[in-house]
Amino acid sequence: MMLRAAVIQQSAWSDKQKSLAETERLLEELCTEHKPDLVLLQELHSTQYFCQIEDPELFDLAEPLDGPTAEKLASLARKHQIVLVGGIFEKRAAGVYHNTALIFDKDGSRAGYYRKMHIPDDPGFYEKFYFTPGDSENRDGTSGFSPVQTSIGKLGVLICWDQWYPEAARLMALAGAEILLYPTAIGWDITDESAEQGRQKTAWETIQRAHAVANHLPVLVANRVGHEDSPKPEDSGINFWGGSMIVGQQGELLAKASADMADFLVADIDMSKTEKLRRIWPYFRDRRVDAYQGLMKRALD
Amino acid sequence: MMLRAAVIQQSAWSDKQKSLAETERLLEELCTEHKPDLVLLQELHSTQYFCQIEDPELFDLAEPLDGPTAEKLASLARKHQIVLVGGIFEKRAAGVYHNTALIFDKDGSRAGYYRKMHIPDDPGFYEKFYFTPGDSENRDGTSGFSPVQTSIGKLGVLICWDQWYPEAARLMALAGAEILLYPTAIGWDITDESAEQGRQKTAWETIQRAHAVANHLPVLVANRVGHEDSPKPEDSGINFWGGSMIVGQQGELLAKASADMADFLVADIDMSKTEKLRRIWPYFRDRRVDAYQGLMKRALD
Repeated sequence: MMLRAAVIQQSAWSDKQKSLAETERLLEELCTEHKPDLVLLQELHSTQYFCQIEDPELFDLAEPLDGPTAEKLASLARKHQIVLVGGIFEKRAAGVYHNTALIFDKDGSRAGYYRKMHIPDDPGFYEKFYFTPGDSENRDGTSGFSPVQTSIGKLGVLICWDQWYPEAARLMALAGAEILLYPTAIGWDITDESAEQGRQKTAWETIQRAHAVANHLPVLVANRVGHEDSPKPEDSGINFWGGSMIVGQQGELLAKASADMADFLVADIDMSKTEKLRRIWPYFRDRRVDAYQGLMKRALD
Repeated sequence: MMLRAAVIQQSAWSDKQKSLAETERLLEELCTEHKPDLVLLQELHSTQYFCQIEDPELFDLAEPLDGPTAEKLASLARKHQIVLVGGIFEKRAAGVYHNTALIFDKDGSRAGYYRKMHIPDDPGFYEKFYFTPGDSENRDGTSGFSPVQTSIGKLGVLICWDQWYPEAARLMALAGAEILLYPTAIGWDITDESAEQGRQKTAWETIQRAHAVANHLPVLVANRVGHEDSPKPEDSGINFWGGSMIVGQQGELLAKASADMADFLVADIDMSKTEKLRRIWPYFRDRRVDAYQGLMKRALD
């Protein structure tokens, strides 16, 4: 089965209407020209990346799972007859907020959602202030790392910081994910020298291609692009490095976006390659499930 | 602390004396010119890759942990004052044979060993016939994935097929490995077309660089090189693809060998980078050890 997959890479603004209008414009062009089955948007695409500071006022940006951004995404999925993966700052309850991906099917119904499991926190990326980590177990007893069934297959949606964890990709694969999707917001501290910036971006590309290799799954990555100032004038802001990509089941780059332009990517993925590869490179057969207990420890000291 | 690390990539023959003489020759040249602290040899370097067929006679190649190949390696470590990682087909007991890496310290003493945990089996690589998988737990209660303490640090030695498993690299890192080492024997089926050969080799390089990225550890990979015929005339044999490498803690290639020549690689690795990187990219802090139970299952069905 061939799947036409697409990724949108865009800038975003603090004004949700403006950000979503840009999404809508790119989606219109993408869908008219290419008629994809699946479109991935970047992390928190309807706002600026607001985690550059810790400010309690910014919780006003949060919305419930079925709030206005969700409604807009549902209508876009239905209009273009696509499976659409978008993201919101979710208000689950007062004091419980998540970084959440929403998955809509072609009829505009919500197929499921994923709440970011690994939450980063480092200078300029103060996510632990805003985002409660996703539950370890869902209401139905499945792991917090569970793929979402859609009309085009099971989607293993993970978010940004999750992309550094082979554990997350593997759990999605073991649970039957047929494709891995990473909405992302990652960029450079512009005070880092360019060789260091290069190593960081190559490391980021390498590990996501490796998730494809380790699991024989295609991988979609949507990153934001452009400079966003910090509200603190003494901070230098973030240059989001773009570089969104579509990766095949052997880690090969099928499509890659620029470092500095809004763009969309499209690729036709032969989904039958997953099983073909797993027959002759049978990593799953040989996993040492009897010897992996240590993975559930912080450190083996 | 700077560590001068080296890798030897060579051809090998069914005659152990001839193969070990080639190792000795390359080691002499390497150590005279570069005075490394650590040298990694490839998997099963003292013989041809004998697993192209299943033949009970070939168990005659196996040796105990302290057999003649071990003695030779010990003397070379002592002579050159290096930590030396080599490999043997180990006879542990009649009917229990392993694919084992031996780690010798600079004084020639055996610092430890590692028995390959993930055993492949596919056409031309019939390893499940020869090699019992390493124990899930060692006598001292540690996991089969345990690094070996040497005078230059804790070495996380894994072998070939292990390189496709992020679980193995992570377990070594959690147990304090300061460097990951992969003696390997991997090559092409020459009947595969060249685009497919390229994807395979790039996938192999990508996932090992990703182990460096995910764990902020340097990675050494030693592969064999050259064509080895199959004893079955109807089979096409294997073209071992070389490409041995030394990788820094951000997955950057510090040195890389050719696809078709015997060679050695040397790189000076700044071991202090591991902690520097882990402070600002704190993946280990955020692992969801409460939600990884599924990693101990074959499939989450």
